[in-house]
Amino acid sequence: MDYVLGVDFGTLSARAVLLRVSDGAQIATASRGYGAYDTELPNGLKLRPLSCCAVPSEYRDAMQTAVRETMRLSGAAPEDVKGIAVDGTSLTLVALDENGVPLCEREEFSGVQDAYIKVWKSHSADAEARQIAEAANAAGAPFLKICGHRVSSEWLYPKALETLHHAPEVYAKTKYLFDCADWVNYLLTGNVVRCTNALAIKTFCRHDTGLPDEEFWRAVEPAFAGVNEKIEGGTALWGEKVGELTAEAAEWLGLRPGIAVGCGSIDGHIAMAALDICHDGDLLLSIGTSNVQALLSDTYSEMPGICAMGLNAMVPGLSCYDAGQAACGDMLAWFMDNMLPEKIAREAREKNVSPHTLLSERGFAAPPDPNGLVLLDWFNGNRCPYARADLRARMDGLTMWTRPEHIYRAMAEATAFGTRSILENMEAHGCAIRRVVACGGIAVKNPLIVQCYADVLGSEIFVADLQNAAANGAGVTAAAAAGLYPTLTEAIERMSTRDFRRYTPNPENKPAYDALYARYMRLARQTMEDAE
Amino acid sequence: MDYVLGVDFGTLSARAVLLRVSDGAQIATASRGYGAYDTELPNGLKLRPLSCCAVPSEYRDAMQTAVRETMRLSGAAPEDVKGIAVDGTSLTLVALDENGVPLCEREEFSGVQDAYIKVWKSHSADAEARQIAEAANAAGAPFLKICGHRVSSEWLYPKALETLHHAPEVYAKTKYLFDCADWVNYLLTGNVVRCTNALAIKTFCRHDTGLPDEEFWRAVEPAFAGVNEKIEGGTALWGEKVGELTAEAAEWLGLRPGIAVGCGSIDGHIAMAALDICHDGDLLLSIGTSNVQALLSDTYSEMPGICAMGLNAMVPGLSCYDAGQAACGDMLAWFMDNMLPEKIAREAREKNVSPHTLLSERGFAAPPDPNGLVLLDWFNGNRCPYARADLRARMDGLTMWTRPEHIYRAMAEATAFGTRSILENMEAHGCAIRRVVACGGIAVKNPLIVQCYADVLGSEIFVADLQNAAANGAGVTAAAAAGLYPTLTEAIERMSTRDFRRYTPNPENKPAYDALYARYMRLARQTMEDAE
Repeated sequence: MDYVLGVDFGTLSARAVLLRVSDGAQIATASRGYGAYDTELPNGLKLRPLSCCAVPSEYRDAMQTAVRETMRLSGAAPEDVKGIAVDGTSLTLVALDENGVPLCEREEFSGVQDAYIKVWKSHSADAEARQIAEAANAAGAPFLKICGHRVSSEWLYPKALETLHHAPEVYAKTKYLFDCADWVNYLLTGNVVRCTNALAIKTFCRHDTGLPDEEFWRAVEPAFAGVNEKIEGGTALWGEKVGELTAEAAEWLGLRPGIAVGCGSIDGHIAMAALDICHDGDLLLSIGTSNVQALLSDTYSEMPGICAMGLNAMVPGLSCYDAGQAACGDMLAWFMDNMLPEKIAREAREKNVSPHTLLSERGFAAPPDPNGLVLLDWFNGNRCPYARADLRARMDGLTMWTRPEHIYRAMAEATAFGTRSILENMEAHGCAIRRVVACGGIAVKNPLIVQCYADVLGSEIFVADLQNAAANGAGVTAAAAAGLYPTLTEAIERMSTRDFRRYTPNPENKPAYDALYARYMRLARQTMEDAE
Repeated sequence: MDYVLGVDFGTLSARAVLLRVSDGAQIATASRGYGAYDTELPNGLKLRPLSCCAVPSEYRDAMQTAVRETMRLSGAAPEDVKGIAVDGTSLTLVALDENGVPLCEREEFSGVQDAYIKVWKSHSADAEARQIAEAANAAGAPFLKICGHRVSSEWLYPKALETLHHAPEVYAKTKYLFDCADWVNYLLTGNVVRCTNALAIKTFCRHDTGLPDEEFWRAVEPAFAGVNEKIEGGTALWGEKVGELTAEAAEWLGLRPGIAVGCGSIDGHIAMAALDICHDGDLLLSIGTSNVQALLSDTYSEMPGICAMGLNAMVPGLSCYDAGQAACGDMLAWFMDNMLPEKIAREAREKNVSPHTLLSERGFAAPPDPNGLVLLDWFNGNRCPYARADLRARMDGLTMWTRPEHIYRAMAEATAFGTRSILENMEAHGCAIRRVVACGGIAVKNPLIVQCYADVLGSEIFVADLQNAAANGAGVTAAAAAGLYPTLTEAIERMSTRDFRRYTPNPENKPAYDALYARYMRLARQTMEDAE
C-alpha cells in the first residue's frame, strides 16, 4: 500500500495528513500550533504597528510533531510513504543567510524583527508597497498587469524592501528570500526551488518576461537593485519534484531518505488538488474568515480588479486568477462580539445551538426582501476590485423593524454580493466560470449561507466536507511528484474527494437578489466616490 | 392663594398639574393612563393596518381621575382654583354628533373604527393625504405653502376624508370634528372653539385666507365639499378664554363652576409657556422619543422643509414654525432591544447603571472622529425636510474596530445632525435662532447627548428639568385666560421655570463635527437620490 504526506502551514498551525495513493483517502492527520505575533515576540521583542511575525523554530518543531504524530496515528510503515509535499500561507517571507540559517537565528539579529518570518498578513510594508507601485506606474512596468494593476504590502518585494529600510544589516546578510513552502522544501531537499504559483501571484513573475529586472529595482531604490539575486534558483509547478528527502530531514521527520518532495505552495490554492479542480472554468470559492476566489481558465486576461494572475502558475496551459474579499466570517464574528443581544445569546444557550445557527435560521426564514437591509462587506476594507484597506462598510435600509437576524442575514448576503461582483468581473474579461466548488469553514458549516450564495450567483455550488483541504491537496501533488500517477491531472482525478453536496439556485429568489445586488453595487460606487 | 390647573393629554395618559399663580410653582400632579390601540380595541374590534385609535370614555375618565387626584394631593381648596386649560396630542381627531356625543358611543357605530378617536400617529389615511396633496398641487392651493409644501396623513382633513371613505354613515352623522384639546374644551364649556395653533399647524388654516374653501374640497371629492361645516365655530389663541366651566363639568371634576377655561392645544408646543419661550428667535427643542423643533419668529416665511407654520398661531404677531424628526429616543431604544451585547448588559447590571449611561460615557469619552461612524437618523423615515415615511436609515464607516458604544454615539450624533439641518433650513429662510431651550426625556436625562447637540449646533442650549412641561405650559395659559396676568407674555415671564442648565459648545469639537455633518448630509442626499 502506497501513501503520501501532505503538510499545510496555516497562519497558526501546521497540519499533516497521510493519504492513500490509490484513492486519496485520508488515513490519519495531526496538527501542532505556533504563533503569529502582532505586538510582541515570545522573546519580548516589541513589533512595529501592523506587523505580524513568526519564529522559524516554531514552524520546524510543529512540522516535526505533526508528521510524526500523523505517522503514529496511521500505523503506516515509513517505507510505504512514497512522497511528501507542503503548502503554506503566502507570501510568508523567510530570510536565510548564506548557510541557510534564518537571519533571526544569528545571535546579532535576534532582536531585529525584520530577521524573523514576516507572516502573509503583515501590513507594515505599506509605504514600500506604495513606493513600488509608484515606480511601476511611472515605468509602465508590465508586471502590474498580472497583479490587478496594484501592489499589495503582503507580497514579497514590499516585505523585502521593508527589511532594507528598517534593518539594512539583515538585508545585506540575506542570501535567500523564500516563501514559507519553498523554505520548507529547501529544508527537506537542500534545493533552492520556487513554486511558480507564489512567484506569479505574489512576486510579480510573468510567464513571458519573468521577474521585474534589476533596472526597475534600481529605479525603485538604488540599494534594492540586486534583490533578485536573493530570489534566484529553480522553479517548479505543482506536482513536480523539488528534490529528494535528505538523510538529515528523513531522520528529523521519521521518514525514509530519498523519497520525492513535491512542489505545493499557496494554501488558499492547493486545496484545488483535493477538490477535483484542474480544468478550464473551475472556480475554487473559499468561504471562511475571509473569502478567496481562484479560477482556472484557458483564457489569458491581464484583467484589473483581481489580486493577481499567472499563466502556468498552477496547471500547465491554464491561467490562474486569484481574487478575494477581506472580510466574511470575521464580519459575522464581529457581529457576535459587538451586536448579539442578550436575549438571543440566552435563547441559543437554552436551545444548545450556536447563535450563528439561530440567526441564520431566523434570518433566512423569509424570502429575500428587495427593500430590506443591504450591507457593504468592507469591514476590513476592500480587497477586490479596489484593493483599498481604508474603505469602510455601509449599511442601508435600517428601520425600527430591523431585527438582529436581518442584520446577520444582510452581512452574509453582502459577502455573496461581493463574490458575485468579483465573478462578474472575471466573466466580463472573457473567463467563463463553469463550475463553482466551495470550501472553507462557513461553506461546510452553514448550508443556509451557501444556498444564499447559490441564489445570488445564480450558479450551482458544490461543497466538499473536507476538513483539511489544503493538506490533502498537498498530498495529491506529492503523489504526482513521486511518479505514482503519470500527471497531476490524473492524480487529482483519482485522489480528489467525490463527496460533494450540491446547492441549486432557487429561481424564485432571483428577482429580489438581483435588486439587492443592484443596491449593493450602488452603495459600493457611492462609498468609492465619497472616498475620492 | 390663587392656583390654576393644567391638563396634558399625551398619547398614553392624561396628566394634571396644579400651579401656584404667583410664581408657577408646581404644587401637585397626578396622571392616569388610557389606551392608544393599533391592532384591536378593548371591545375586540380589529383595526386597519397603520391605524391608531382611542376611546373617548377612557380620556374622560383619565381626566377626572387625574384632576381629582391632583387636588387631593395638593390639599388646595376648589375655590382657590381660578382657571384650567388643557393641551393634547395633535391632530387627534374626535368626531361628535349633533348632540355632542362621540360617534362611537352611538350603539350603531360601536363596531366602526372611524367613529373612535383617531390618535395623532394613526397613518392609515395615507391614500387620502396623497389625494389631497395631488388636488392641492393641481390647484396651486395657497395652504400648501404653510405646511412645508406637503400633506401629512396625521392631519385633520386626511383623517376626515378617510372616515368618508371607510364609514360614510359616520361621516354623515358627524356634526363636529375636533382636535383632542378643543373637544375637551367643548366638554368643559359647551362652546365650540378651536385653537388657532392646531388650525394653522395641522388644519391648513392660513392667517389671511383661512381654511381651504368648499370649491377646493369639491375638487378633491364632491362628497367632501361640505367638510368645513364640521369645523365651524370660534377660534382662540393661547391664553385666551374659551369659556367658563359649566356646572356639570365642575361637578364632574370637583371644581367650582364659572372658572375660566383657557385655550391650550398642541402638547409639543404648549411647553413653550412653561419654558419662557415667547420672543422672536426662541426655539423649543424637544429631545425625546422623537424630536420637535418649534421656532417663534417675527419673520414670516412660507418655507419648505418644515412640517407647518402659522402667523399668530401661538403668540400674536409672531410666526410659529413647526418641524420635527421622526426618530430619536426610540432609535436608542431600538439599539437596546436589538443590538445591546450581553457583556454590556451584564456590566451595566453589575455597576447598577442604565446601559444608556454606560454607552454614553464610553461613546463620548473620545473626541469626535471625522472618519468614524456616521448614521442617518431615518429609522422611522424622514419628517423634515422630506416628509417621507418610506425612507430608511443608513450607517457609514463600519469596520472590524467598530464597537457598540461607537454605534450608540453615532445614533445620538445623527439626531443632532438632523436637528442642525432643520435649523439651518429655518435660518436660510430668514428666521434667526437666538436661543435654544431644550426639553424632553433625553434632554433632562443625558447631559452627554445635550452637550453633543450644543457642539453640533454650535449653539448654547438651555435645559429645564421640568418633568411635565406640557401640563405646566397649559397651566400658564390658564392663568392668562383667567385674567390673573394682563397678557400671556407676562404670565410666561412670571410663571415659567428659571432653573435652566446651560450647555456651551466646545470649539475644539467643531471641525470634526462639521466634517461628520458634511458626511451626514451626503448620506441624506444619496439616500434621497436612491429613493427616486
